[in-house]
Amino acid sequence: MFTAKVVGNVVATQKDESLRGSKLLVIKPLFGKPKKEDCLVAVDIVGAGVGERVLVAKGSAARKVDQFSDSPIDMAIVGIIDDIELDESEF
Amino acid sequence: MFTAKVVGNVVATQKDESLRGSKLLVIKPLFGKPKKEDCLVAVDIVGAGVGERVLVAKGSAARKVDQFSDSPIDMAIVGIIDDIELDESEF
Amino acid sequence: MFTAKVVGNVVATQKDESLRGSKLLVIKPLFGKPKKEDCLVAVDIVGAGVGERVLVAKGSAARKVDQFSDSPIDMAIVGIIDDIELDESEF
Amino acid sequence: MFTAKVVGNVVATQKDESLRGSKLLVIKPLFGKPKKEDCLVAVDIVGAGVGERVLVAKGSAARKVDQFSDSPIDMAIVGIIDDIELDESEF
Amino acid sequence: MFTAKVVGNVVATQKDESLRGSKLLVIKPLFGKPKKEDCLVAVDIVGAGVGERVLVAKGSAARKVDQFSDSPIDMAIVGIIDDIELDESEF
Repeated sequence: MFTAKVVGNVVATQKDESLRGSKLLVIKPLFGKPKKEDCLVAVDIVGAGVGERVLVAKGSAARKVDQFSDSPIDMAIVGIIDDIELDESEF
Repeated sequence: MFTAKVVGNVVATQKDESLRGSKLLVIKPLFGKPKKEDCLVAVDIVGAGVGERVLVAKGSAARKVDQFSDSPIDMAIVGIIDDIELDESEF
Repeated sequence: MFTAKVVGNVVATQKDESLRGSKLLVIKPLFGKPKKEDCLVAVDIVGAGVGERVLVAKGSAARKVDQFSDSPIDMAIVGIIDDIELDESEF
Repeated sequence: MFTAKVVGNVVATQKDESLRGSKLLVIKPLFGKPKKEDCLVAVDIVGAGVGERVLVAKGSAARKVDQFSDSPIDMAIVGIIDDIELDESEF
Repeated sequence: MFTAKVVGNVVATQKDESLRGSKLLVIKPLFGKPKKEDCLVAVDIVGAGVGERVLVAKGSAARKVDQFSDSPIDMAIVGIIDDIELDESEF
């Protein structure tokens, strides 16, 4: 998984039937100086909103959630981050 | 998933039997200054066309669509983007 | 999927039993200035040869072909490219 | 798999139900000069702690562990490294 | 798949139960000037040793080998390379 920040959302009327009703959020990596081209789109399953720090799972992991098990999704927000405790001496 | 723009298509007469009749579109990442070497090829399942902004799923997610569940594909266009709402202050 | 050019082949006598008889081709990305370190190895399922432009699928998609469904392969040539039609104004 | 060092942990109260009780560790690649943006988050299944060198598996491999087979995780710490024996003449 | 050279091994006493007895080899990409941070760890299934050139499969492909079908591994050495025939005019 990786850490990211929710920075927007995607509106898509015409999409795969199984994605109807899903919330498609734009995320950018949490650290560094990510640009727009580093952003990705993830389905939200935990009620995340713009501005929040989130934990993101990719690949088939994203479909290990009941309502999306048969949807063509490869990225899901699986947690909202309260805190990240880092050993700062490592950086 | 990631956002992309459809910029062309691939013609391949000789291909895996299960890909017959599929539409193979060339996509480039939506943001930044992508070059030809950044382009990828995705199967279209939502009726997308050249010039449109699309949502792309990769990996096994691409096969979560009935007609392609047994095809050797790893990338599919799963939505046509109407709008992307971004918190511009993040960039 | 991505576009590539076949530039060679790999000879490996000692390999996983399920790979016996398979054709292991070396491919390089089609566009840009790829070096040897950008090359990958794909199993051929469509009769491709050195010099040809091909369509390549990676990951579990590569095993969506009968004879390789239980082989440890993660990349397959699934089509021979006749033509790539690109909107050149995009580059 | 790849080698990494545990450098922290993530606290997330609101998360997918199946992740309750899991230990979410922040890891950075073992070699080179990784920055915060190179860090990833992995579920620990071997009792690893901050400061330890670990072996990390990603993708669906992370779910090949009983308690996480149905969790949306894509990265797991599968071993604690005692030693890495390298042919230094190769670098 | 990709080509690599075996340059070492990892010793890990504490690891997922299903990895007991497995040989964990450190590999570096075959071409270019790979550094230590480019190295990865693969399970060996063909009897490869340090110094040999090998063919490596990643992702779920690595588990398409009987003894590792339920192990948390994402990379396996599936062949020992005797020769790589490249069209040198391409580089």
